[in-house]
Amino acid sequence: MIRIDGNIAKLREAVRCLRKGSGSIGLVPTMGYLHEGHLSLVRKSISENGSTVVTIFVNPLQFGPNEDYEAYPRDLEKDCLLLEKEGVDIVFCPKPEDLYYPDHSTYVVEERVSRDLCGASRPGHFRGVCTIVLKLFLLIGPDRAYFGEKDFQQLQVIRRMVRDLNVPVEIRGCPIVREKDGLALSSRNVYLSPSERLSAVALSRSLKAAKELYDSGEKNAGKIIGCVQEELLSDPALRVEYIELRDAEELSVLETVDKPAVLALAVRVGKTRLIDNVKLGEVEA
Amino acid sequence: MIRIDGNIAKLREAVRCLRKGSGSIGLVPTMGYLHEGHLSLVRKSISENGSTVVTIFVNPLQFGPNEDYEAYPRDLEKDCLLLEKEGVDIVFCPKPEDLYYPDHSTYVVEERVSRDLCGASRPGHFRGVCTIVLKLFLLIGPDRAYFGEKDFQQLQVIRRMVRDLNVPVEIRGCPIVREKDGLALSSRNVYLSPSERLSAVALSRSLKAAKELYDSGEKNAGKIIGCVQEELLSDPALRVEYIELRDAEELSVLETVDKPAVLALAVRVGKTRLIDNVKLGEVEA
Repeated sequence: MIRIDGNIAKLREAVRCLRKGSGSIGLVPTMGYLHEGHLSLVRKSISENGSTVVTIFVNPLQFGPNEDYEAYPRDLEKDCLLLEKEGVDIVFCPKPEDLYYPDHSTYVVEERVSRDLCGASRPGHFRGVCTIVLKLFLLIGPDRAYFGEKDFQQLQVIRRMVRDLNVPVEIRGCPIVREKDGLALSSRNVYLSPSERLSAVALSRSLKAAKELYDSGEKNAGKIIGCVQEELLSDPALRVEYIELRDAEELSVLETVDKPAVLALAVRVGKTRLIDNVKLGEVEA
Repeated sequence: MIRIDGNIAKLREAVRCLRKGSGSIGLVPTMGYLHEGHLSLVRKSISENGSTVVTIFVNPLQFGPNEDYEAYPRDLEKDCLLLEKEGVDIVFCPKPEDLYYPDHSTYVVEERVSRDLCGASRPGHFRGVCTIVLKLFLLIGPDRAYFGEKDFQQLQVIRRMVRDLNVPVEIRGCPIVREKDGLALSSRNVYLSPSERLSAVALSRSLKAAKELYDSGEKNAGKIIGCVQEELLSDPALRVEYIELRDAEELSVLETVDKPAVLALAVRVGKTRLIDNVKLGEVEA
């Protein structure tokens, strides 16, 4: 495995060599502090491509001024060991100054799919995500790129960006990986105290209950959301930011679940903001 | 010459064949109604690359609601004849619906170099320019792309976008081509009545006078601008939109011309908006 710490010319040269050698290139962009969710993306990429590039970059542009950019957990050495073991070809771990000039002034904005849900509570977040993801696409030129469905809105915003800007890459969404008790894996789970960790199970439990309600025939969005609400409001340690039932593609509001949909939520557990979601009906992955 | 009227899969395939065949690819993006200015870009591209792709697309996204999108002159058949004669390999002439979905929602915005000058009087213009130019880069994947220096701000906005987003393309600026009397070639010159055409000469004449003042040792921006103003205000057929002396790279305000600079103006001659500029000192082309 080649590790490139920020030199862009070296990265381009290493990717050029990969492309000559072994067919298609898969990209897995991450913010590091890797868990089994990330590794499932890496394995998928390795199984579908001749080579796999992983990027590890905590992107300051997608954090708001009062968010956890500084505190975001990092363990670059451990991450690199994990990726080497998986058989990754290149890991690119730049610093902010490797990717942003002091007078950086160009951004990619998506104005529809990114507007609500996390976009509403994190202004500028998806602008930061789109900008860095496009930069990585342009630096590496992958044939396929892999994103987890836990960040479902992010996945759909990136799909939209790729469609609208004619980016020559195939976006692959991969299923959420969960702990045994249902909690979706997230680098931010490390922030949780033991009692918060117990409370956090309610997110996936409530989504599972709502999915069962849907599967049993309930198609009314209000009732399905109500089922989640009931579960979450019963624990005072949880502060709901949103619970939304949306069309699965452009995330527009649904009154009745008459097409592929996603039930998504963001909840604060203490100071930690967690997101989770479940798909209702068939959704392109 | 292969002409592709809007089929994106065909374009990608034709470009793939070009790349296999003959080394580097040059791109000349245009809005058509070609004149010697465009053809100078085409010739430059042909001289520097194995293959040359020209695009002809009047991009609705860069026109404001009260601008001349509908009236913008078009002559696709004549343009294609001219390009064939020059030895262009591919001409791509899509319609808006080939490049924009009805629910297009992703844009590229540059927030510094694009802010003043034409950006101030044409809100959304450079957002439209950046978005279409990036789309064309991603559709064609050129090694070099050619832009005229008449649209000097556009050229510098595109350079900035390419730098900030790590677009793997070399931007080449090419000198303004002028009529014998000095008027900068522009597809919009066709709008001018005979008397307006006479008045329009003042743009280049005033810039020439200012350049001579600068070359004779005057470095005070106010005095150089004043020289242009004096010339333009004497003709009531001319309405000055701006006359600005700016740093040549990021177009920031200059009081004293102590580094490469550009003296740029936008003037209405009747209903026709014309722009022109001259470089003061050494400027990267």
